[in-house]
Amino acid sequence: MILIGERVNAGFKDIKQAVIDKDSKPIIDWTIRQVEAKSDYLDVCLGTASNKVEDLLWMIETVQEVTDVPICIDNNKIDMLIKAIPICKKPPLINSVVAIDERMDALFPIIEKYGASVICLVMDEQGSPKTLEKRLENAGRIFAKVMEYSIPPEHIFLDPIIMPLKFMQEQGKEILAATSQFKIFSDPPCHIVGGLTNVSNGAIHKKLINRVFATMLVANGLDALICDVTDTELIDSLLTAELILNKSIYADSYIEAFRK
Amino acid sequence: MILIGERVNAGFKDIKQAVIDKDSKPIIDWTIRQVEAKSDYLDVCLGTASNKVEDLLWMIETVQEVTDVPICIDNNKIDMLIKAIPICKKPPLINSVVAIDERMDALFPIIEKYGASVICLVMDEQGSPKTLEKRLENAGRIFAKVMEYSIPPEHIFLDPIIMPLKFMQEQGKEILAATSQFKIFSDPPCHIVGGLTNVSNGAIHKKLINRVFATMLVANGLDALICDVTDTELIDSLLTAELILNKSIYADSYIEAFRK
Repeated sequence: MILIGERVNAGFKDIKQAVIDKDSKPIIDWTIRQVEAKSDYLDVCLGTASNKVEDLLWMIETVQEVTDVPICIDNNKIDMLIKAIPICKKPPLINSVVAIDERMDALFPIIEKYGASVICLVMDEQGSPKTLEKRLENAGRIFAKVMEYSIPPEHIFLDPIIMPLKFMQEQGKEILAATSQFKIFSDPPCHIVGGLTNVSNGAIHKKLINRVFATMLVANGLDALICDVTDTELIDSLLTAELILNKSIYADSYIEAFRK
Repeated sequence: MILIGERVNAGFKDIKQAVIDKDSKPIIDWTIRQVEAKSDYLDVCLGTASNKVEDLLWMIETVQEVTDVPICIDNNKIDMLIKAIPICKKPPLINSVVAIDERMDALFPIIEKYGASVICLVMDEQGSPKTLEKRLENAGRIFAKVMEYSIPPEHIFLDPIIMPLKFMQEQGKEILAATSQFKIFSDPPCHIVGGLTNVSNGAIHKKLINRVFATMLVANGLDALICDVTDTELIDSLLTAELILNKSIYADSYIEAFRK
Protein backbone atom coordinates (compact mmCIF):
# COMPACT_ATOMS: atom_id res chain seq x y z
CA MET A 1 0.00 0.00 0.00
CA ILE A 2 1.30 3.41 -0.95
CA LEU A 3 0.23 5.82 1.78
CA ILE A 4 0.09 9.51 0.90
CA GLY A 5 -0.26 11.72 3.96
CA GLU A 6 -2.91 14.37 3.27
CA ARG A 7 -2.25 16.73 6.13
CA VAL A 8 0.28 19.35 4.95
CA ASN A 9 -2.50 20.97 2.99
CA ALA A 10 -3.59 24.58 3.39
CA GLY A 11 -7.15 23.36 2.99
CA PHE A 12 -6.74 22.66 6.72
CA LYS A 13 -6.94 25.82 8.83
CA ASP A 14 -3.78 25.26 10.85
CA ILE A 15 -1.67 24.79 7.74
CA LYS A 16 -3.29 27.74 5.95
CA GLN A 17 -2.43 29.97 8.91
CA ALA A 18 1.09 28.53 8.99
CA VAL A 19 1.62 29.44 5.34
CA ILE A 20 0.27 32.96 5.85
CA ASP A 21 2.46 33.47 8.95
CA LYS A 22 5.46 31.57 7.54
CA ASP A 23 5.30 29.56 10.75
CA SER A 24 7.07 26.29 10.07
CA LYS A 25 6.01 24.57 13.31
CA PRO A 26 2.60 23.15 12.27
CA ILE A 27 4.10 21.92 9.00
CA ILE A 28 7.01 20.26 10.75
CA ASP A 29 4.75 18.76 13.41
CA TRP A 30 2.42 17.21 10.83
CA THR A 31 5.36 16.07 8.75
CA ILE A 32 6.85 14.20 11.70
CA ARG A 33 3.50 12.66 12.68
CA GLN A 34 2.87 11.49 9.13
CA VAL A 35 6.38 10.11 8.69
CA GLU A 36 6.05 8.22 11.97
CA ALA A 37 2.78 6.82 10.62
CA LYS A 38 4.81 5.39 7.70
CA SER A 39 3.74 7.68 4.87
CA ASP A 40 5.25 6.83 1.49
CA TYR A 41 4.58 10.35 0.18
CA LEU A 42 3.66 13.61 1.88
CA ASP A 43 1.08 15.71 0.07
CA VAL A 44 1.96 19.42 0.08
CA CYS A 45 -0.79 21.81 -0.97
CA LEU A 46 -0.93 25.60 -1.00
CA GLY A 47 -4.70 25.61 -1.30
CA THR A 48 -6.10 29.13 -1.15
CA ALA A 49 -3.45 30.29 1.30
CA SER A 50 -1.30 31.70 -1.45
CA ASN A 51 -0.70 31.63 -5.18
CA LYS A 52 3.02 32.39 -4.94
CA VAL A 53 5.50 29.78 -6.01
CA GLU A 54 7.88 30.89 -3.21
CA ASP A 55 5.30 29.81 -0.66
CA LEU A 56 5.00 26.37 -2.26
CA LEU A 57 8.79 26.07 -2.31
CA TRP A 58 8.92 27.15 1.34
CA MET A 59 6.39 24.46 2.27
CA ILE A 60 8.35 21.76 0.45
CA GLU A 61 11.62 22.89 1.99
CA THR A 62 10.06 22.99 5.43
CA VAL A 63 8.86 19.40 5.05
CA GLN A 64 12.26 18.35 3.71
CA GLU A 65 14.03 19.87 6.70
CA VAL A 66 12.89 16.89 8.74
CA THR A 67 12.40 14.06 6.27
CA ASP A 68 13.49 12.47 3.02
CA VAL A 69 10.06 10.95 2.41
CA PRO A 70 9.10 11.98 -1.13
CA ILE A 71 6.73 14.86 -1.75
CA CYS A 72 3.36 14.70 -3.46
CA ILE A 73 3.08 18.18 -4.97
CA ASP A 74 -0.63 18.97 -4.85
CA ASN A 75 -0.66 21.59 -7.59
CA ASN A 76 -1.47 21.58 -11.28
CA LYS A 77 0.18 24.82 -12.43
CA ILE A 78 2.97 24.03 -14.85
CA ASP A 79 5.03 27.16 -14.05
CA MET A 80 4.98 26.32 -10.35
CA LEU A 81 5.75 22.65 -10.91
CA ILE A 82 8.77 23.52 -13.05
CA LYS A 83 10.24 25.31 -10.05
CA ALA A 84 9.01 22.93 -7.36
CA ILE A 85 10.00 19.59 -8.85
CA PRO A 86 13.77 20.29 -9.00
CA ILE A 87 13.97 21.17 -5.30
CA CYS A 88 12.49 17.83 -4.28
CA LYS A 89 15.07 15.48 -2.79
CA LYS A 90 13.42 12.51 -4.46
CA PRO A 91 11.26 12.25 -7.59
CA PRO A 92 7.89 13.60 -6.51
CA LEU A 93 4.36 12.52 -7.26
CA ILE A 94 2.37 15.28 -8.97
CA ASN A 95 -1.27 15.69 -7.88
CA SER A 96 -2.79 15.99 -10.47
CA VAL A 97 -3.62 16.13 -14.15
CA VAL A 98 -6.93 15.42 -15.93
CA ALA A 99 -7.79 13.53 -19.13
CA ILE A 100 -7.50 16.60 -21.37
CA ASP A 101 -4.83 16.36 -24.08
CA GLU A 102 -3.43 19.91 -23.74
CA ARG A 103 -3.04 19.53 -19.98
CA MET A 104 -1.31 16.18 -20.31
CA ASP A 105 0.89 17.45 -23.15
CA ALA A 106 1.96 20.34 -20.93
CA LEU A 107 2.74 18.19 -17.89
CA PHE A 108 3.96 14.82 -19.20
CA PRO A 109 7.27 16.11 -20.64
CA ILE A 110 8.13 17.36 -17.15
CA ILE A 111 7.08 14.06 -15.56
CA GLU A 112 9.27 12.29 -18.10
CA LYS A 113 12.26 14.60 -17.62
CA TYR A 114 12.38 14.32 -13.83
CA GLY A 115 11.31 10.67 -13.49
CA ALA A 116 8.36 11.91 -11.46
CA SER A 117 5.04 10.17 -11.00
CA VAL A 118 1.61 11.64 -11.63
CA ILE A 119 -1.93 11.24 -10.37
CA CYS A 120 -4.27 11.22 -13.36
CA LEU A 121 -7.89 12.01 -12.57
CA VAL A 122 -10.33 10.36 -14.96
CA MET A 123 -12.18 13.64 -15.49
CA ASP A 124 -12.32 15.68 -18.68
CA GLU A 125 -13.70 18.94 -20.14
CA GLN A 126 -17.15 17.95 -18.90
CA GLY A 127 -16.01 17.66 -15.30
CA SER A 128 -16.30 14.72 -12.96
CA PRO A 129 -17.51 11.47 -14.49
CA LYS A 130 -20.79 10.01 -13.26
CA THR A 131 -20.58 6.52 -14.72
CA LEU A 132 -18.23 3.58 -14.94
CA GLU A 133 -18.17 3.95 -18.73
CA LYS A 134 -17.06 7.58 -18.60
CA ARG A 135 -14.35 6.73 -16.08
CA LEU A 136 -13.04 3.97 -18.36
CA GLU A 137 -13.21 6.21 -21.43
CA ASN A 138 -11.15 8.87 -19.68
CA ALA A 139 -8.69 6.27 -18.38
CA GLY A 140 -8.25 5.12 -21.97
CA ARG A 141 -7.64 8.70 -23.05
CA ILE A 142 -4.97 9.06 -20.36
CA PHE A 143 -3.20 5.86 -21.40
CA ALA A 144 -3.28 6.78 -25.06
CA LYS A 145 -1.43 9.96 -24.11
CA VAL A 146 0.99 8.25 -21.72
CA MET A 147 2.07 6.02 -24.63
CA GLU A 148 3.34 9.10 -26.47
CA TYR A 149 5.90 9.68 -23.71
CA SER A 150 8.56 7.57 -22.00
CA ILE A 151 6.66 7.34 -18.76
CA PRO A 152 6.57 3.85 -17.25
CA PRO A 153 3.11 2.64 -16.15
CA GLU A 154 4.27 2.43 -12.55
CA HIS A 155 4.70 6.22 -12.55
CA ILE A 156 0.99 6.62 -13.39
CA PHE A 157 -1.50 6.77 -10.53
CA LEU A 158 -5.00 6.51 -11.99
CA ASP A 159 -7.68 8.12 -9.81
CA PRO A 160 -11.34 7.05 -10.27
CA ILE A 161 -12.45 10.22 -8.40
CA ILE A 162 -14.05 9.45 -5.08
CA MET A 163 -17.35 11.22 -4.44
CA PRO A 164 -19.17 11.93 -1.16
CA LEU A 165 -21.40 9.02 -0.17
CA LYS A 166 -23.90 11.34 1.47
CA PHE A 167 -24.52 13.46 -1.61
CA MET A 168 -23.85 11.04 -4.48
CA GLN A 169 -24.67 7.65 -3.10
CA GLU A 170 -25.02 6.02 -6.51
CA GLN A 171 -21.36 6.77 -7.27
CA GLY A 172 -19.91 4.14 -4.91
CA LYS A 173 -20.63 1.22 -7.21
CA GLU A 174 -19.34 3.08 -10.27
CA ILE A 175 -16.10 4.00 -8.51
CA LEU A 176 -15.53 0.43 -7.28
CA ALA A 177 -16.29 -1.04 -10.71
CA ALA A 178 -13.94 1.43 -12.42
CA THR A 179 -11.19 0.63 -9.92
CA SER A 180 -11.47 -3.08 -10.66
CA GLN A 181 -11.00 -2.42 -14.38
CA PHE A 182 -8.18 0.13 -14.28
CA LYS A 183 -5.47 -2.54 -13.99
CA ILE A 184 -6.17 -3.80 -17.50
CA PHE A 185 -4.95 -0.63 -19.19
CA SER A 186 -1.29 -1.55 -19.08
CA ASP A 187 1.11 -4.35 -18.30
CA PRO A 188 2.69 -3.92 -15.81
CA PRO A 189 -0.36 -2.21 -14.35
CA CYS A 190 -0.39 1.38 -13.20
CA HIS A 191 -1.13 2.32 -9.61
CA ILE A 192 -4.69 3.12 -8.61
CA VAL A 193 -5.12 5.93 -6.11
CA GLY A 194 -7.96 7.80 -4.47
CA GLY A 195 -8.49 10.85 -2.29
CA LEU A 196 -10.26 8.93 0.45
CA THR A 197 -11.52 11.60 2.80
CA ASN A 198 -13.97 12.95 0.23
CA VAL A 199 -16.18 9.87 0.58
CA SER A 200 -17.25 10.84 4.10
CA ASN A 201 -17.76 14.54 3.36
CA GLY A 202 -20.74 15.76 5.40
CA ALA A 203 -21.36 12.37 7.01
CA ILE A 204 -21.40 11.64 10.73
CA HIS A 205 -19.67 8.26 10.76
CA LYS A 206 -16.69 9.66 8.85
CA LYS A 207 -13.93 7.32 10.00
CA LEU A 208 -16.09 4.24 9.61
CA ILE A 209 -17.12 5.23 6.09
CA ASN A 210 -13.50 6.06 5.21
CA ARG A 211 -12.12 2.72 6.30
CA VAL A 212 -14.92 0.58 4.87
CA PHE A 213 -14.72 2.32 1.50
CA ALA A 214 -10.92 2.07 1.54
CA THR A 215 -11.18 -1.67 2.24
CA MET A 216 -13.63 -2.14 -0.63
CA LEU A 217 -11.34 -0.16 -2.95
CA VAL A 218 -8.36 -2.33 -2.00
CA ALA A 219 -10.50 -5.42 -2.65
CA ASN A 220 -11.02 -4.00 -6.14
CA GLY A 221 -7.35 -3.30 -6.83
CA LEU A 222 -6.59 0.15 -5.45
CA ASP A 223 -3.03 0.25 -4.09
CA ALA A 224 -2.43 3.88 -3.12
CA LEU A 225 -4.39 6.26 -0.96
CA ILE A 226 -4.32 9.94 -0.08
CA CYS A 227 -5.65 9.82 3.44
CA ASP A 228 -5.33 10.57 7.11
CA VAL A 229 -2.36 8.30 7.74
CA THR A 230 -2.65 8.98 11.48
CA ASP A 231 -6.04 7.22 11.57
CA THR A 232 -4.78 3.95 13.05
CA GLU A 233 -8.04 2.07 12.53
CA LEU A 234 -7.89 2.95 8.84
CA ILE A 235 -4.29 1.81 8.55
CA ASP A 236 -5.08 -1.41 10.46
CA SER A 237 -7.85 -2.13 7.94
CA LEU A 238 -5.55 -1.46 4.99
CA LEU A 239 -2.80 -3.70 6.41
CA THR A 240 -5.34 -6.46 6.94
CA ALA A 241 -6.82 -6.11 3.46
CA GLU A 242 -3.37 -6.41 1.89
CA LEU A 243 -2.65 -9.45 4.05
CA ILE A 244 -5.86 -11.06 2.80
CA LEU A 245 -4.76 -10.33 -0.77
CA ASN A 246 -1.45 -12.07 0.07
CA LYS A 247 0.54 -8.90 -0.66
CA SER A 248 2.40 -9.15 2.65
CA ILE A 249 3.32 -12.24 4.62
CA TYR A 250 1.12 -13.21 7.55
CA ALA A 251 2.52 -12.89 11.04
CA ASP A 252 0.40 -12.83 14.18
CA SER A 253 1.92 -9.46 15.02
CA TYR A 254 1.57 -7.93 11.54
CA ILE A 255 0.15 -4.68 12.89
CA GLU A 256 2.70 -4.30 15.65
CA ALA A 257 5.48 -5.08 13.15
CA PHE A 258 4.27 -2.30 10.82
CA ARG A 259 4.15 0.22 13.68
CA LYS A 260 7.64 -0.59 14.95
CA MET B 1 -27.42 -8.28 4.12
CA ILE B 2 -28.70 -11.61 5.36
CA LEU B 3 -27.24 -12.13 8.83
CA ILE B 4 -27.07 -15.69 10.15
CA GLY B 5 -26.33 -15.82 13.88
CA GLU B 6 -23.68 -18.47 14.49
CA ARG B 7 -23.94 -18.82 18.25
CA VAL B 8 -26.50 -21.58 18.99
CA ASN B 9 -23.90 -24.11 17.98
CA ALA B 10 -22.64 -26.90 20.20
CA GLY B 11 -19.20 -26.24 18.81
CA PHE B 12 -19.21 -23.56 21.53
CA LYS B 13 -18.65 -25.01 25.01
CA ASP B 14 -21.60 -23.33 26.70
CA ILE B 15 -24.05 -24.60 24.09
CA LYS B 16 -22.53 -28.09 24.11
CA GLN B 17 -23.00 -28.28 27.88
CA ALA B 18 -26.54 -26.93 27.53
CA VAL B 19 -27.42 -29.70 25.08
CA ILE B 20 -25.91 -32.37 27.34
CA ASP B 21 -27.72 -31.01 30.39
CA LYS B 22 -30.93 -30.11 28.51
CA ASP B 23 -30.49 -26.66 29.99
CA SER B 24 -32.45 -24.26 27.81
CA LYS B 25 -31.09 -21.07 29.39
CA PRO B 26 -27.85 -20.58 27.37
CA ILE B 27 -29.74 -21.32 24.17
CA ILE B 28 -32.53 -18.88 25.00
CA ASP B 29 -30.04 -16.22 26.11
CA TRP B 30 -28.06 -16.46 22.88
CA THR B 31 -31.25 -16.58 20.83
CA ILE B 32 -32.47 -13.34 22.38
CA ARG B 33 -29.09 -11.62 21.97
CA GLN B 34 -28.89 -12.64 18.33
CA VAL B 35 -32.48 -11.65 17.60
CA GLU B 36 -31.85 -8.25 19.20
CA ALA B 37 -28.80 -7.96 16.95
CA LYS B 38 -31.17 -8.33 13.96
CA SER B 39 -30.34 -11.84 12.78
CA ASP B 40 -32.23 -12.97 9.71
CA TYR B 41 -31.57 -16.64 10.51
CA LEU B 42 -30.36 -18.42 13.63
CA ASP B 43 -27.93 -21.26 13.03
CA VAL B 44 -28.69 -24.31 15.20
CA CYS B 45 -25.99 -26.97 15.37
CA LEU B 46 -25.70 -30.12 17.46
CA GLY B 47 -22.00 -30.43 16.80
CA THR B 48 -20.45 -33.29 18.74
CA ALA B 49 -22.78 -32.81 21.70
CA SER B 50 -25.16 -35.47 20.44
CA ASN B 51 -26.16 -37.47 17.40
CA LYS B 52 -29.81 -37.86 18.41
CA VAL B 53 -32.47 -36.18 16.36
CA GLU B 54 -34.50 -35.49 19.52
CA ASP B 55 -31.70 -33.24 20.73
CA LEU B 56 -31.71 -31.28 17.48
CA LEU B 57 -35.49 -30.94 17.67
CA TRP B 58 -35.19 -29.79 21.30
CA MET B 59 -32.66 -27.12 20.29
CA ILE B 60 -34.89 -25.84 17.50
CA GLU B 61 -37.96 -25.83 19.74
CA THR B 62 -36.03 -24.03 22.46
CA VAL B 63 -35.00 -21.30 20.04
CA GLN B 64 -38.56 -21.08 18.70
CA GLU B 65 -39.94 -20.61 22.20
CA VAL B 66 -38.69 -17.03 22.10
CA THR B 67 -38.56 -16.07 18.43
CA ASP B 68 -40.07 -16.54 14.99
CA VAL B 69 -36.77 -15.73 13.26
CA PRO B 70 -36.16 -18.59 10.82
CA ILE B 71 -33.76 -21.38 11.67
CA CYS B 72 -30.61 -22.32 9.81
CA ILE B 73 -30.37 -26.07 10.46
CA ASP B 74 -26.65 -26.76 10.62
CA ASN B 75 -26.82 -30.47 9.83
CA ASN B 76 -26.40 -32.55 6.70
CA LYS B 77 -28.03 -35.83 7.74
CA ILE B 78 -31.10 -36.43 5.60
CA ASP B 79 -32.92 -38.53 8.22
CA MET B 80 -32.53 -35.75 10.80
CA LEU B 81 -33.50 -33.00 8.38
CA ILE B 82 -36.70 -34.84 7.41
CA LYS B 83 -37.78 -34.61 11.04
CA ALA B 84 -36.36 -31.16 11.80
CA ILE B 85 -37.62 -29.17 8.82
CA PRO B 86 -41.35 -29.72 9.48
CA ILE B 87 -41.13 -28.38 13.05
CA CYS B 88 -39.65 -25.09 11.85
CA LYS B 89 -42.15 -22.22 12.05
CA LYS B 90 -40.77 -20.73 8.82
CA PRO B 91 -38.98 -22.34 5.88
CA PRO B 92 -35.47 -22.95 7.16
CA LEU B 93 -32.07 -22.61 5.58
CA ILE B 94 -30.18 -25.90 5.48
CA ASN B 95 -26.46 -25.75 6.23
CA SER B 96 -25.19 -27.48 4.08
CA VAL B 97 -24.75 -29.67 1.04
CA VAL B 98 -21.69 -30.19 -1.16
CA ALA B 99 -21.22 -30.45 -4.94
CA ILE B 100 -21.65 -34.22 -5.05
CA ASP B 101 -24.59 -35.45 -7.12
CA GLU B 102 -25.82 -38.15 -4.71
CA ARG B 103 -25.82 -35.73 -1.79
CA MET B 104 -27.71 -33.09 -3.74
CA ASP B 105 -30.15 -35.66 -5.14
CA ALA B 106 -30.86 -36.79 -1.59
CA LEU B 107 -31.40 -33.29 -0.21
CA PHE B 108 -32.87 -31.18 -3.02
CA PRO B 109 -36.28 -32.96 -3.13
CA ILE B 110 -36.70 -32.00 0.54
CA ILE B 111 -35.61 -28.43 -0.11
CA GLU B 112 -38.11 -28.30 -2.97
CA LYS B 113 -40.96 -29.86 -0.96
CA TYR B 114 -40.68 -27.50 2.01
CA GLY B 115 -39.72 -24.32 0.16
CA ALA B 116 -36.53 -24.31 2.19
CA SER B 117 -33.22 -22.71 1.24
CA VAL B 118 -29.85 -24.40 1.19
CA ILE B 119 -26.20 -23.47 1.62
CA CYS B 120 -24.20 -25.20 -1.12
CA LEU B 121 -20.49 -25.52 -0.40
CA VAL B 122 -18.37 -25.56 -3.54
CA MET B 123 -16.46 -28.63 -2.35
CA ASP B 124 -16.62 -32.11 -3.85
CA GLU B 125 -15.30 -35.66 -3.39
CA GLN B 126 -11.76 -34.24 -3.30
CA GLY B 127 -12.52 -31.97 -0.36
CA SER B 128 -12.10 -28.23 -0.09
CA PRO B 129 -11.16 -26.43 -3.30
CA LYS B 130 -7.81 -24.64 -3.43
CA THR B 131 -8.29 -22.57 -6.56
CA LEU B 132 -10.75 -20.17 -8.13
CA GLU B 133 -11.21 -22.59 -11.04
CA LYS B 134 -12.16 -25.50 -8.78
CA ARG B 135 -14.62 -23.31 -6.92
CA LEU B 136 -16.26 -22.24 -10.18
CA GLU B 137 -16.33 -25.81 -11.49
CA ASN B 138 -18.11 -26.98 -8.33
CA ALA B 139 -20.51 -24.03 -8.45
CA GLY B 140 -21.36 -25.05 -12.00
CA ARG B 141 -21.97 -28.61 -10.84
CA ILE B 142 -24.32 -27.32 -8.14
CA PHE B 143 -26.30 -25.19 -10.58
CA ALA B 144 -26.56 -28.01 -13.11
CA LYS B 145 -28.20 -30.06 -10.35
CA VAL B 146 -30.41 -27.21 -9.09
CA MET B 147 -31.85 -26.96 -12.61
CA GLU B 148 -33.23 -30.50 -12.27
CA TYR B 149 -35.46 -29.36 -9.40
CA SER B 150 -37.99 -26.59 -8.88
CA ILE B 151 -35.77 -24.64 -6.54
CA PRO B 152 -35.63 -20.90 -7.26
CA PRO B 153 -32.12 -19.40 -7.39
CA GLU B 154 -32.91 -17.18 -4.43
CA HIS B 155 -33.18 -20.31 -2.27
CA ILE B 156 -29.59 -21.22 -3.13
CA PHE B 157 -26.81 -19.82 -0.96
CA LEU B 158 -23.49 -20.54 -2.68
CA ASP B 159 -20.54 -20.74 -0.26
CA PRO B 160 -16.99 -20.22 -1.63
CA ILE B 161 -15.58 -21.85 1.56
CA ILE B 162 -13.66 -19.41 3.69
CA MET B 163 -10.26 -20.64 4.87
CA PRO B 164 -8.08 -19.46 7.77
CA LEU B 165 -5.85 -16.57 6.74
CA LYS B 166 -3.12 -17.65 9.12
CA PHE B 167 -2.77 -21.16 7.70
CA MET B 168 -3.82 -20.74 4.06
CA GLN B 169 -2.97 -17.17 3.22
CA GLU B 170 -3.02 -17.72 -0.53
CA GLN B 171 -6.73 -18.65 -0.35
CA GLY B 172 -8.01 -15.11 0.28
CA LYS B 173 -7.62 -14.00 -3.33
CA GLU B 174 -9.17 -17.19 -4.67
CA ILE B 175 -12.19 -16.86 -2.38
CA LEU B 176 -12.72 -13.21 -3.29
CA ALA B 177 -12.39 -13.92 -7.01
CA ALA B 178 -14.83 -16.84 -6.79
CA THR B 179 -17.32 -14.69 -4.90
CA SER B 180 -17.24 -12.04 -7.59
CA GLN B 181 -18.08 -14.64 -10.25
CA PHE B 182 -20.79 -16.62 -8.45
CA LYS B 183 -23.54 -14.16 -9.41
CA ILE B 184 -23.23 -15.09 -13.08
CA PHE B 185 -24.54 -18.63 -12.55
CA SER B 186 -28.19 -17.66 -12.58
CA ASP B 187 -30.58 -14.83 -13.27
CA PRO B 188 -31.89 -13.76 -10.80
CA PRO B 189 -28.64 -14.47 -8.98
CA CYS B 190 -28.37 -16.81 -6.03
CA HIS B 191 -27.23 -15.61 -2.65
CA ILE B 192 -23.56 -15.83 -1.73
CA VAL B 193 -22.76 -16.78 1.83
CA GLY B 194 -19.71 -17.51 3.92
CA GLY B 195 -18.86 -18.83 7.36
CA LEU B 196 -16.86 -15.78 8.38
CA THR B 197 -15.26 -16.73 11.66
CA ASN B 198 -13.06 -19.36 10.04
CA VAL B 199 -10.93 -16.68 8.37
CA SER B 200 -9.47 -15.55 11.70
CA ASN B 201 -8.91 -19.05 13.09
CA GLY B 202 -5.71 -19.02 15.14
CA ALA B 203 -5.03 -15.33 14.52
CA ILE B 204 -4.60 -12.67 17.18
CA HIS B 205 -6.44 -9.81 15.50
CA LYS B 206 -9.56 -11.91 15.02
CA LYS B 207 -12.26 -9.24 14.95
CA LEU B 208 -10.27 -6.96 12.69
CA ILE B 209 -9.56 -9.79 10.24
CA ASN B 210 -13.23 -10.85 10.35
CA ARG B 211 -14.61 -7.43 9.54
CA VAL B 212 -12.04 -6.54 6.88
CA PHE B 213 -12.54 -9.85 5.08
CA ALA B 214 -16.32 -9.49 5.38
CA THR B 215 -16.12 -6.01 3.85
CA MET B 216 -14.00 -7.30 0.97
CA LEU B 217 -16.45 -10.16 0.38
CA VAL B 218 -19.38 -7.73 0.29
CA ALA B 219 -17.44 -5.60 -2.19
CA ASN B 220 -17.25 -8.73 -4.35
CA GLY B 221 -20.95 -9.59 -4.15
CA LEU B 222 -21.43 -11.67 -0.99
CA ASP B 223 -24.83 -10.88 0.55
CA ALA B 224 -25.19 -13.33 3.44
CA LEU B 225 -22.93 -14.17 6.34
CA ILE B 226 -22.77 -16.73 9.12
CA CYS B 227 -21.08 -14.71 11.81
CA ASP B 228 -21.00 -13.28 15.29
CA VAL B 229 -23.96 -10.93 14.86
CA THR B 230 -23.27 -9.43 18.28
CA ASP B 231 -19.94 -8.03 17.03
CA THR B 232 -21.14 -4.45 16.55
CA GLU B 233 -18.02 -3.29 14.73
CA LEU B 234 -18.51 -6.07 12.20
CA ILE B 235 -22.17 -5.16 11.71
CA ASP B 236 -21.29 -1.45 11.40
CA SER B 237 -18.83 -2.34 8.63
CA LEU B 238 -21.41 -4.47 6.82
CA LEU B 239 -24.06 -1.73 7.04
CA THR B 240 -21.57 0.78 5.67
CA ALA B 241 -20.47 -1.51 2.84
CA GLU B 242 -24.07 -2.03 1.75
CA LEU B 243 -24.66 1.71 1.90
CA ILE B 244 -21.65 2.26 -0.36
CA LEU B 245 -23.10 -0.30 -2.78
CA ASN B 246 -26.36 1.71 -2.72
CA LYS B 247 -28.33 -1.25 -1.33
CA SER B 248 -29.81 0.87 1.44
CA ILE B 249 -30.61 4.56 1.45
CA TYR B 250 -28.15 6.93 3.09
CA ALA B 251 -29.16 8.65 6.30
CA ASP B 252 -26.71 10.28 8.69
CA SER B 253 -28.02 7.99 11.42
CA TYR B 254 -27.99 4.78 9.38
CA ILE B 255 -26.32 2.79 12.13
CA GLU B 256 -28.56 4.08 14.90
CA ALA B 257 -31.62 3.43 12.70
CA PHE B 258 -30.57 -0.19 12.21
CA ARG B 259 -30.05 -0.73 15.93
CA LYS B 260 -33.39 0.77 16.93
